[in-house]
Amino acid sequence: MLTGAALIGSHDVAGDTTFRAVDPARNMAIGPDFTEAGPAEVARAAALAAAAFPIYRATTPTQRADFLERIAAGIESLGEALIERATQETGLPAARLQGERARTTGQLRLFANWVRAGGADEPRLDSPLPDRTPLPRADLRLRHIGVGPVAVFGASNFPLAFSVAGGDTASALAAGCPVIVKGHPAHPGTSELVGRAIRAAIAESGLPEGVFSLVTGTTTALGAALVADPRMKAVGFTGSRAGGLALVDIANNRPEPIPVYAEMSSINPVFLLPGALRARAEALAAGFAASLTMGAGQFCTNPGLVIALASEGLDRFLPAAGTAIAAAPSATMLTPGIASAYAKGVAALETNPAAHELALGRQEGGTNACRPALFVTDADAFIGTPALGHEVFGASALVVRCANEAQMLKVAHAVEGQLTATLHLESEDHPLAGQLVPILEEKAGRILANGWPTGVEVCHAMVHGGPFPATSDPRSTSVGTLAIRRFLRPVCYQDLPEALLPHAVQAGNPLNLPRLVDGVAETSREPRS
Amino acid sequence: MLTGAALIGSHDVAGDTTFRAVDPARNMAIGPDFTEAGPAEVARAAALAAAAFPIYRATTPTQRADFLERIAAGIESLGEALIERATQETGLPAARLQGERARTTGQLRLFANWVRAGGADEPRLDSPLPDRTPLPRADLRLRHIGVGPVAVFGASNFPLAFSVAGGDTASALAAGCPVIVKGHPAHPGTSELVGRAIRAAIAESGLPEGVFSLVTGTTTALGAALVADPRMKAVGFTGSRAGGLALVDIANNRPEPIPVYAEMSSINPVFLLPGALRARAEALAAGFAASLTMGAGQFCTNPGLVIALASEGLDRFLPAAGTAIAAAPSATMLTPGIASAYAKGVAALETNPAAHELALGRQEGGTNACRPALFVTDADAFIGTPALGHEVFGASALVVRCANEAQMLKVAHAVEGQLTATLHLESEDHPLAGQLVPILEEKAGRILANGWPTGVEVCHAMVHGGPFPATSDPRSTSVGTLAIRRFLRPVCYQDLPEALLPHAVQAGNPLNLPRLVDGVAETSREPRS
Repeated sequence: MLTGAALIGSHDVAGDTTFRAVDPARNMAIGPDFTEAGPAEVARAAALAAAAFPIYRATTPTQRADFLERIAAGIESLGEALIERATQETGLPAARLQGERARTTGQLRLFANWVRAGGADEPRLDSPLPDRTPLPRADLRLRHIGVGPVAVFGASNFPLAFSVAGGDTASALAAGCPVIVKGHPAHPGTSELVGRAIRAAIAESGLPEGVFSLVTGTTTALGAALVADPRMKAVGFTGSRAGGLALVDIANNRPEPIPVYAEMSSINPVFLLPGALRARAEALAAGFAASLTMGAGQFCTNPGLVIALASEGLDRFLPAAGTAIAAAPSATMLTPGIASAYAKGVAALETNPAAHELALGRQEGGTNACRPALFVTDADAFIGTPALGHEVFGASALVVRCANEAQMLKVAHAVEGQLTATLHLESEDHPLAGQLVPILEEKAGRILANGWPTGVEVCHAMVHGGPFPATSDPRSTSVGTLAIRRFLRPVCYQDLPEALLPHAVQAGNPLNLPRLVDGVAETSREPRS
Repeated sequence: MLTGAALIGSHDVAGDTTFRAVDPARNMAIGPDFTEAGPAEVARAAALAAAAFPIYRATTPTQRADFLERIAAGIESLGEALIERATQETGLPAARLQGERARTTGQLRLFANWVRAGGADEPRLDSPLPDRTPLPRADLRLRHIGVGPVAVFGASNFPLAFSVAGGDTASALAAGCPVIVKGHPAHPGTSELVGRAIRAAIAESGLPEGVFSLVTGTTTALGAALVADPRMKAVGFTGSRAGGLALVDIANNRPEPIPVYAEMSSINPVFLLPGALRARAEALAAGFAASLTMGAGQFCTNPGLVIALASEGLDRFLPAAGTAIAAAPSATMLTPGIASAYAKGVAALETNPAAHELALGRQEGGTNACRPALFVTDADAFIGTPALGHEVFGASALVVRCANEAQMLKVAHAVEGQLTATLHLESEDHPLAGQLVPILEEKAGRILANGWPTGVEVCHAMVHGGPFPATSDPRSTSVGTLAIRRFLRPVCYQDLPEALLPHAVQAGNPLNLPRLVDGVAETSREPRS
């Protein structure tokens, strides 16, 4: 079923240079051979995408929604073959991948509904005022259109939900933008299977082949060529800070710079407030250990930083968390590279005099295993040692012990931009929480209470984003329907004859979209006369 | 009345190094001495802005709206002193500046109404689903908050509407962001007057002084220090391509990169379609010449490029336009520097073998005068000579003669990103226009029919933006209420106790904002139970 070809529009393109996936649990390469795509494949895919763009963006919201739903159905019809391949390529358990598949298809369907309801167009109409003095007002109408072809970089840690048909692809397609995915080389077979499902949905929908291409390879030159191609107009990326910033640099240095939405790194501070610690230190320790070690800690929203006041409650939390971490089994990480980077990160903390090792998870035999780790430091050491604030991707966390509330607020001010910040609190903690929330709003894209940051709901109100360096663009989210806005730009039409206006802004509202008319929402959704 | 001080919060800061404004009509420096602000003043203003941000962004929409309205009233109460000073500093006629003042105050009031109506917050609520399987859904709420202190660069060509209290300032303040304006050194007195009106509105509104500062100076180091300051979180700029790109570079090279909204350059192609030329070549020539020469051509949306099919109609248009341009009086430009750059640009076209000079305006005695100029070329020469597509800021235009429709479409594809594109057409032109519109949507932020691009309405449906190099960020507009979105970022609240939630997303909707609840607009604006 797998060919190892790059999927350039409707063409399978096989090259002479190839690479193989690695089964991280066995540390063994597995077939077939996958084509190392390069600048030639990028150029071909970009030409097809540019040709497809005017046609694809002219589709109606319903046509785009139907297309997204066909992709979802196509992914489902891949059945267990997809789960099996993904398990083999990532070491993730089948149950987790089944959940991730449901999230991926649910995301496509949510976006389909949102597009169908007019969520991407956001039309605005201002009525002409021919009799206004000193000057009349023209007839002005605005709608949003796609920015153009989008480059999407698949992430290693979500082989389905943040990969070939993941959130970035779904957002860009929903916005009317063709997509070229640079598949993550850690799961090329999973990528090809999903890529073929998208290709089939394109054919079934009668769309031009250039709406989607998949290039896979292991070289940084491949991604660089994709971002540098003048036909690409935006980039979506989830991965390391170094990787994201490299793409931002390439994008900024193009003759025509383009936006890069890079979701890069986050240690997701969790504040354990005194009342909560007093009431349930042991339960917090158990919940924390479960969130930290889930999926070998390979989540963007992994709770890597715990901030608490020195207290009797913390004295209960620490040993309980230490015991839970020490008992946590090691788990296979996604790739040998990620496993070795994790080991290196933990080793650096072990030798950092500012951090004290509280617990290490069980050492077990498996290859590329992540051994959970927990360290402790104090507020002054944390603030004075920037390295303690850097992400160690995997199940490692640091507890910062604060002498008093003022120190806790100082630590909150000191953390870098984050995807999430979490408060565990009881009602007696509200005064302190009330001081923390405004600080955290400026530090993170999502603030949680009495939960754990892992698990990102795909919905309208989600923000999976945040200030730099969590992302390269804090004005956006990469999860939820608001993610579609990243790939849109507004266009205004002034006094255009009705026959030349796009349907979204025609007087009769033939697409039946919600529109803002003279600053007021057309509440009735009735055609405007 | 004028002191020449930098306005740092509520403090007047006078320095030893000073500069003076120039009356361009007389080419004479005029008093008083204005402080050359530098990094020290920037640091002081940025510290005040950072301190003000948490307080200012916590204001209610009504409080911010009232503040914007007080600024508008304060500008009006400056009376004729403002118009007189602006006339002296810019060479623009009083009537034009009166109109620009009305636009500036109207803009502040429109934004006030939009903020009051909830246009900045855009809250979204997704209801919890505690019984969902396999996992419950949390209570998720989203609102938008300001990105932080914003640096605004005043433009030379709109001393009121794109300057100290112009569109960028109004947008940022509406979004809840403190503003530091780097006033344009061509109109420091005008800037100080308006700056003092903003300062008075801050005091009257009981807001912290750091919500606004004004630094004026002639050095590039001043602007560079402002953009580089780590407390600044976004930049608004209207001006030259070189100036805008320099700021983008500084912003990209900060440890924390920040967005720059630079509105830079545009030649605003105008397509004269055959039917329109046949029906009204002479009227088009008159309208074109009036739009080109208005305000000495010193508009971002000045029609600098005319594209037409070789035809009997064009043969009527060209001499009529040439006659009108030749008869057009020269007018004083904003600054000696702009006048000399204009003269250089026209001289370069005069010696460019690809362009033929059709007409030059009257040579008149005044200093810093702009002599209108009209050139002609053909489609191949235009496409083959990139210099012909560069902006000459002032009343110079180039007509591109196309042999046929295919050539016209090729020229449309060849132009760079633009603020506007205009079609003059009759109904018989609709087939050709129908081919042009989709091309122009990818080239420009605004498409007009049977009008002239000068004159940018401030409303909800306006887009004053467009693909690079017209702006550094085609996803945005710098005019109209959508401009506020540039300075906002979304924040999500998950399971936060009601007492800790911001009012915008509380269950009772105490601010009575329009909200998206479970993907559906709360049409009734009734409090949600």
